Amino acid sequence: MNNIDNLEAMRHSLAHILAAAVQELYPKVEFGIGPAIENGFYYDFANIKLSEADLPKIEKKMREIIVQDLPVEQGDWNKANALKWAASQPFKKELVEDLVCEDPSAKSCSLTFYRIGNFTDLCAGPHLKSTSEVGAFKLTSIAGAYWRGDETRAQMTRVYGIAFKTQQELDDYTAMLAEAEKRDHRKLGAQLDLFTFSSDVGSGLPMFTPRGTILFDKLSELSLSLREKIGHQRIRTPHITKTDLYKLSGHWDKFGDELFMVKSQETSDQFVMKPMSCPHHIQIYLSKPRSYRDLPVRLVEAAMVYRDEKKGELGGMSRVRAFTQDDSHILCRKDQIKPEVDSLIKFIHQLYGTLGMTDIRARLSYRDDGDGYLGDRELWNMAESQLKALADENHLDYYEAEGEAAFYGPKIDFMAKDAIGREFQVATVQLDFNMPGRFGLEYTNEEGKKETPVMLHHAALGSVERFLSVFIEHTAGHFPFWCAPEQVRVLTIGETKEYAEKIETILAGITLEQPLKHNDLRYKIDSGKDNLSKKIKRAEELKIPVLILVGPKDAEAEQVTIRTRDGEEKVALKDLSEWLKKQA
Amino acid sequence: MNNIDNLEAMRHSLAHILAAAVQELYPKVEFGIGPAIENGFYYDFANIKLSEADLPKIEKKMREIIVQDLPVEQGDWNKANALKWAASQPFKKELVEDLVCEDPSAKSCSLTFYRIGNFTDLCAGPHLKSTSEVGAFKLTSIAGAYWRGDETRAQMTRVYGIAFKTQQELDDYTAMLAEAEKRDHRKLGAQLDLFTFSSDVGSGLPMFTPRGTILFDKLSELSLSLREKIGHQRIRTPHITKTDLYKLSGHWDKFGDELFMVKSQETSDQFVMKPMSCPHHIQIYLSKPRSYRDLPVRLVEAAMVYRDEKKGELGGMSRVRAFTQDDSHILCRKDQIKPEVDSLIKFIHQLYGTLGMTDIRARLSYRDDGDGYLGDRELWNMAESQLKALADENHLDYYEAEGEAAFYGPKIDFMAKDAIGREFQVATVQLDFNMPGRFGLEYTNEEGKKETPVMLHHAALGSVERFLSVFIEHTAGHFPFWCAPEQVRVLTIGETKEYAEKIETILAGITLEQPLKHNDLRYKIDSGKDNLSKKIKRAEELKIPVLILVGPKDAEAEQVTIRTRDGEEKVALKDLSEWLKKQA
Repeated sequence: MNNIDNLEAMRHSLAHILAAAVQELYPKVEFGIGPAIENGFYYDFANIKLSEADLPKIEKKMREIIVQDLPVEQGDWNKANALKWAASQPFKKELVEDLVCEDPSAKSCSLTFYRIGNFTDLCAGPHLKSTSEVGAFKLTSIAGAYWRGDETRAQMTRVYGIAFKTQQELDDYTAMLAEAEKRDHRKLGAQLDLFTFSSDVGSGLPMFTPRGTILFDKLSELSLSLREKIGHQRIRTPHITKTDLYKLSGHWDKFGDELFMVKSQETSDQFVMKPMSCPHHIQIYLSKPRSYRDLPVRLVEAAMVYRDEKKGELGGMSRVRAFTQDDSHILCRKDQIKPEVDSLIKFIHQLYGTLGMTDIRARLSYRDDGDGYLGDRELWNMAESQLKALADENHLDYYEAEGEAAFYGPKIDFMAKDAIGREFQVATVQLDFNMPGRFGLEYTNEEGKKETPVMLHHAALGSVERFLSVFIEHTAGHFPFWCAPEQVRVLTIGETKEYAEKIETILAGITLEQPLKHNDLRYKIDSGKDNLSKKIKRAEELKIPVLILVGPKDAEAEQVTIRTRDGEEKVALKDLSEWLKKQA
Repeated sequence: MNNIDNLEAMRHSLAHILAAAVQELYPKVEFGIGPAIENGFYYDFANIKLSEADLPKIEKKMREIIVQDLPVEQGDWNKANALKWAASQPFKKELVEDLVCEDPSAKSCSLTFYRIGNFTDLCAGPHLKSTSEVGAFKLTSIAGAYWRGDETRAQMTRVYGIAFKTQQELDDYTAMLAEAEKRDHRKLGAQLDLFTFSSDVGSGLPMFTPRGTILFDKLSELSLSLREKIGHQRIRTPHITKTDLYKLSGHWDKFGDELFMVKSQETSDQFVMKPMSCPHHIQIYLSKPRSYRDLPVRLVEAAMVYRDEKKGELGGMSRVRAFTQDDSHILCRKDQIKPEVDSLIKFIHQLYGTLGMTDIRARLSYRDDGDGYLGDRELWNMAESQLKALADENHLDYYEAEGEAAFYGPKIDFMAKDAIGREFQVATVQLDFNMPGRFGLEYTNEEGKKETPVMLHHAALGSVERFLSVFIEHTAGHFPFWCAPEQVRVLTIGETKEYAEKIETILAGITLEQPLKHNDLRYKIDSGKDNLSKKIKRAEELKIPVLILVGPKDAEAEQVTIRTRDGEEKVALKDLSEWLKKQA
């Protein structure tokens, strides 16, 4: 039946069909807005009470409308007619009143409307031609939402739906959602005892428990230590900074309203919480004279930065107000751009390969012919062709996006797919032809003359907190052996005290060297009086990768039973250390 | 000649004699205040211009006054007479006007004055009987100071002097000062390329360069990793926190005006920069139920905290506005206080022993019979006698200070002497019978009933930044091998490229295990074209502990020349690794 090229149009029409169905079922409803979104659509309603139990009824009504094969009719009205239409709909009225003609000199201005059966809505489109073109859809959930996202205005009821071309796609997506819910990092974060929030501390400000801190530190340490191998040097900078510094850097204009303002009571200093570390890293560069032989200067810091997000936008670890950016800044000569970016591309693949995320795409963002780009056109051309050459040489799965560069330079962004197919932006490499000049950075070249270096911004995990949310869901909490908070738990059965001590001595002597160097084994001995099945249950809830079961018979045979997700096996005590060192 | 029991009285009288001398030399001078201070005295003057070149002349005049054997005469005046005396002295007038009678019901109130020759000063004393009792003194420096420490008020000229009973003591102190100046951590910080400040970032906000970061991380890591061995677990908490949390904890009242206030623009949340981490560590405790078997819970974090100091109080790394506290909080049962404190005392001695600071004193602070102490009297008695018993058992060099406890519990503070005899407060262990109840902390005891745990606060290095200033001056920048930012530099002479590579392979394979585990060797190869003496000079300026000199003859003989502060020695290449692993 279908001839649907445009998923967005279908999702958009479904929002209208949803509203039409609600109108039939709840005539007193007041309408907010109803856009197409990723994977589906929603519509905001007021003056009615809905619960998830009402969704089947609404969905049924929608299907009744759809099978009528109703045309979706477009019409243009002037403002007066539009206001008449909106007379009994306060939210729609506000929208019409706020709408300004595109051509203010026009005598009358027309607004676009779409009608499906008895339901007409102010809407820019696009839409399907007829309801019969609708593919597969499903209403999924209800949530609260403020009118126009403003906490001080009316609370609406938002109904969400999903929609795809085929039932198969919808089923796949639904299965993925169910799997994602099982893996929800907020749920696993509590179950695995990784982090906590407190309303006394403030929303969006995570605190990491001992287990979560180990995981956090291991991931962050992997990212930093792999970069040390390519010459990055760690530095430490503070979290507050005089406002002036960000005015100088230009961040003030960009991040002004996302900044936490900090006031000194003892002095007249006006500070902000730093939203990024670039200007601080620049201060380190400025702390002594640099010659061409000293470049590249590669500085790296896992620094906590702060963005003042609206509370409604916060969610678990995915979006927080304090996060740790694993940030490198490289100051180099123009002829060093290519080898530096090459080295970063290789590092990114090594890092994500180690983390089990090998499905990586890259987007190369170039300038277009517009104005407003800073820096020499020739330098841009050279840099862009070098990025493309590097993408080819490194066999990246990439696409090019003209006009997507920042005003200060081209960039490469990297997207990784997780185990259930969701794509996340992860690493970034950005060239910057602006900031070094803005801060007066210099080096002395071979001829003894002053030159301005180029700056590279690079984050590998990005926000470590956000990456953690991705990684927890990617692994479903089954962390790789090397970074699991508790790697090994020994579960004793019966009278095995001495033998357990012998095993502990072996475990205490084990240091893993891959993929992170010098990683002392983290283990616990559960020698309590509980029975084995209770001990196993406790350990499996924490998803500890290796359980070592020891009973009196094992002691006699100088062996252990090792239990992992792959099953159980017997290992001789003398081979235990080697067996564990082989895990990764 | 002297009969001086009271150094403070002498230093106080010298401040007056200094003022008397300045009055004779500069009749238009206006007087501020002139107290006795540690090691000497100062006086603040206005309406005159002084430079250090004027000090000998002033000192000469002081000695002329002193040899006259003038009596120091005390008298009590009423406020009217005092105001008459202050008529031509605006600062003194302000002081007199601000002075309030201790007994406001008294009809008249008298103020105490001291007269030496022609100079009379409002002053509470004590003083010498006569100028002849003055011991050895010297004027040392001039500095700017604001009237009453207030940046918005008049700028005064402060003249500093030092004073001791005997010339020998004064000479020793002067020699110590000269040595301290040579070791000044601000000077060495720049010479050794450890840290930098920037007026764009803000005063009191240090930034650590790559070399400084290594030193910082090694010291901090030693402090934390030694504590992990005694069961402390690392956690991570954010730097901003809702004001409410500190109102709940009681810090708001104590630190209110030292707090940086943080304003959210997107929400109505009012935050502060955290001045300490205790309430955050408490949130981790609160994140799950605890049983008596789970205690002690020992949490440790090297967390940056913020105190809003006045700019005039900031100095290099000694006093900063952002510093890293190596903070442990232990929640335990009452019967666990003694073993926990014992374990901390042993750890503190191990830590400072490793850092080469073995001259440690302890102060045990107890409550007195006053009101206002929180917690059970019996618990206090038990805890105090346990602290004393532990001090004895651990053979501490200690003294007891009744009435010096915090209102919430007794404590032990530790003071360490540096290489030139200066004493610094370093570690602290504080018992807290208050905060756990305030935050509703609980555990389930053996009988299944809820009990409140006791809290121990512990910092080992204290502020890592401040400790760095002490450690840099203690070592004069000659850091122990294990924590030196660059431990080894290979200096090549002539054509030794291949041999230098061979040496580098050896160095790259070396990991030190003492006192910090898994400490990969940090080295550089200086194979540039400069001659050897230039290379040595460069390395010695950075105080790199081990220089490996290699020339063609060494290559032939398969040996190296090792140069340290102790001299030079030849070491066979095959023994190099072992030689280096023995350093600490």
